Amino acid sequence: MTSTLIRNCAVLVTPDSGDCSVQDAQDIHITDGTISAITPTRQTPPSDAEVLDATGLLAIPGLTNAHTHTPMVLMRGAAEDLSLDNWFNQKIWPMETNLTPERVRIGARLACAEMLLSGITSFADHYFHADQVAQAAAELGIRADLAPTFFTSTGPEAREASFDTARQIRALSNPRITASLGPHAPYTVSEEDLTRTAEVARSENFRIHLHAAETQEQTTSSLTHHNATPIRLLHRTGILEAGAHLAHACALADEDVTLLAQHADRTVIATCPKIYLKLAMGNTTPIRSLQAAGIPISIGTDGAAAHNTQDMWESLRLTALTEKHKEQDATWMSLSQTLRLATHPNTLTPGHPADITLVDLSAPHNQPLHNPLAALVYSIRPADVIHVLVAGHLVVHNQSLTTADLPEILNQANEVADSLVTLTTPDTIQHYAP
Amino acid sequence: MTSTLIRNCAVLVTPDSGDCSVQDAQDIHITDGTISAITPTRQTPPSDAEVLDATGLLAIPGLTNAHTHTPMVLMRGAAEDLSLDNWFNQKIWPMETNLTPERVRIGARLACAEMLLSGITSFADHYFHADQVAQAAAELGIRADLAPTFFTSTGPEAREASFDTARQIRALSNPRITASLGPHAPYTVSEEDLTRTAEVARSENFRIHLHAAETQEQTTSSLTHHNATPIRLLHRTGILEAGAHLAHACALADEDVTLLAQHADRTVIATCPKIYLKLAMGNTTPIRSLQAAGIPISIGTDGAAAHNTQDMWESLRLTALTEKHKEQDATWMSLSQTLRLATHPNTLTPGHPADITLVDLSAPHNQPLHNPLAALVYSIRPADVIHVLVAGHLVVHNQSLTTADLPEILNQANEVADSLVTLTTPDTIQHYAP
Repeated sequence: MTSTLIRNCAVLVTPDSGDCSVQDAQDIHITDGTISAITPTRQTPPSDAEVLDATGLLAIPGLTNAHTHTPMVLMRGAAEDLSLDNWFNQKIWPMETNLTPERVRIGARLACAEMLLSGITSFADHYFHADQVAQAAAELGIRADLAPTFFTSTGPEAREASFDTARQIRALSNPRITASLGPHAPYTVSEEDLTRTAEVARSENFRIHLHAAETQEQTTSSLTHHNATPIRLLHRTGILEAGAHLAHACALADEDVTLLAQHADRTVIATCPKIYLKLAMGNTTPIRSLQAAGIPISIGTDGAAAHNTQDMWESLRLTALTEKHKEQDATWMSLSQTLRLATHPNTLTPGHPADITLVDLSAPHNQPLHNPLAALVYSIRPADVIHVLVAGHLVVHNQSLTTADLPEILNQANEVADSLVTLTTPDTIQHYAP
Repeated sequence: MTSTLIRNCAVLVTPDSGDCSVQDAQDIHITDGTISAITPTRQTPPSDAEVLDATGLLAIPGLTNAHTHTPMVLMRGAAEDLSLDNWFNQKIWPMETNLTPERVRIGARLACAEMLLSGITSFADHYFHADQVAQAAAELGIRADLAPTFFTSTGPEAREASFDTARQIRALSNPRITASLGPHAPYTVSEEDLTRTAEVARSENFRIHLHAAETQEQTTSSLTHHNATPIRLLHRTGILEAGAHLAHACALADEDVTLLAQHADRTVIATCPKIYLKLAMGNTTPIRSLQAAGIPISIGTDGAAAHNTQDMWESLRLTALTEKHKEQDATWMSLSQTLRLATHPNTLTPGHPADITLVDLSAPHNQPLHNPLAALVYSIRPADVIHVLVAGHLVVHNQSLTTADLPEILNQANEVADSLVTLTTPDTIQHYAP
């Protein structure tokens, strides 16, 4: 049994509904990776636990990055000021012919470092060579769910190989690492392949992580080709029934919300607002109507080839700002609502995993601190993150990784970066034409 | 004659049109506060200038915060999740009854510290007790233009006193500190007072900094009450002819763009996108049509009571994102366009003031560095700012202020913060009802 005591911090309380709040002068007791108690500092008896002095810091539930493609940090800044079509067809999908398992692992290590140092304790990834992403996550000590990507264009062997990769990741039996199935999207995966995916998911108890209804063009095209919206297609192929983790879901019909609501107990939708704006994708995720229908929402960054960072502070702030703007309601997506979305399912409550981020709000950009919730949504910077624990392990201590050597990660990334973005052949892994 | 040499940095080149670029391995020579030459590092002869080694850093023109109310950092986080009406009437204008000259200076010192540390070298401020803001700017070494605010509701004495304050600031004869006249807005200042302001501005060669056409409600109301849009009102009172620095200008009619274009040589419009989203103000500044008409655009933060920070990186990034989204054109507001707006009129060119920010792009969130322009717009963080020079003076060195004691600034701010936001009377300085 290992015991850790985070001593004398403020604690962010994030109830399932209502206002979040901050309790000062608390001790967080951790036993075998789980929060075992939270007690006022002055009431804590002496113990032989390992102590992390957190005086002056605020503990928050670790941030969850609900949708990304971590290895794409290697393409950061290499595809700018392009329409969605050109971004895919001129840059990203040709570049991805340069992927190798080693390059994927190198990229994932850099992304995991960036995420941990900015307070993210878990992420849901969707990419090729997902076993390599799993290795990087295991090494750096971050919690991860990995969905091995496949397209129908690469044939049934690639589809089955992606399922095998998910099984291999599961077989690692690392309690912090899980796997999902990863069909790319309804516009790149056939109805037959979606059906097969749902069957495997149901029989082997996997969830399915995929992109859906990213733009109105995709939804309109789906109606033309399948006589069904992307969400209806996911319903009729059994994907929704099996349990779907959907990225984006921006262009939804009313009937889509109804279908999703019928599977609300097994569905989550990840919104990534920065890329909707940057790639001029039209809609953003209709969070208000989805939440009204009881469908869980999470926030993600998406890959750095469009998002440029793996910074969840940026994503949660943009979620609040874009929602207030879209709904023309400055009271909507309040501080508490936003913080819940960004930290869910983590919560600083006994019995929950000790995935905890400790921040210092004493820098000038957060002062005076009239309202720590406002600081967390609207003024904090990633550099305010001091310590990070995942499953009770101190993976970031005093703003440094404890699990890996950052200069070595950066050197490796720079050694392979050019080879990944240089296009020497007209090859591509896919063509964007939804 | 004082000479400084910034040695061995990369230099951001920001031409008036076309693409920005980066030149590696340059030396920037500064004489008496002005850039005297920029030469390749290996060609620089020995000199007796004071040397700042900038190996590994990128020099950019100092960021310009084109519209703010710096002392409002004291209200940071104290008015959240409120409609524009309630934000003004329940919080901000009642709180401003608590202003004193000392509190204004204390707030401005904190804001100047925050701005300098994040790479801002100049700001245009609009506030009460503007002489105190001038003192803070002079002390910290940042360049500033101060517009003393007045409302018609406080009578002609307050109007004339605000003009006197502008004259006093000018009389400081500090080459880094200028003054403008500061009527609050066409919906809080009478036509008569606007006319009087324009007369003083013309006769004494002041510019006029004011809010205008912030929301469609204001523009519609102006048409009802004045049979003129806010911009038409500024035209007919002589404000545009005198030279206007307009904050926001979000809700414009076509004829407004035409009127502004007629005064393009003496007009600048400051856009502050974060607050348009956060306060659900409807429109954002129509940058594309204003630029097409030749009207200069700059970027500002606005006050921290709504913006929560004085971070121009955030503002420039949001300008790019919101413009791409609004125009549904991912190629619009390109990296180069955005960087020009955020740094204008500063440029790293011989003969220009040595207002220079040096950034380090080696941290994981900027790596690999395929495109430094993309890093400056989409991934940089304020903590990447290492050194800042204003008029050749090194005011931030290795991420620390050289001109003031940051802990003392923070202590002062915290001592007065509660007294500023506590509402003990029903008094207010103004009522929002455009």
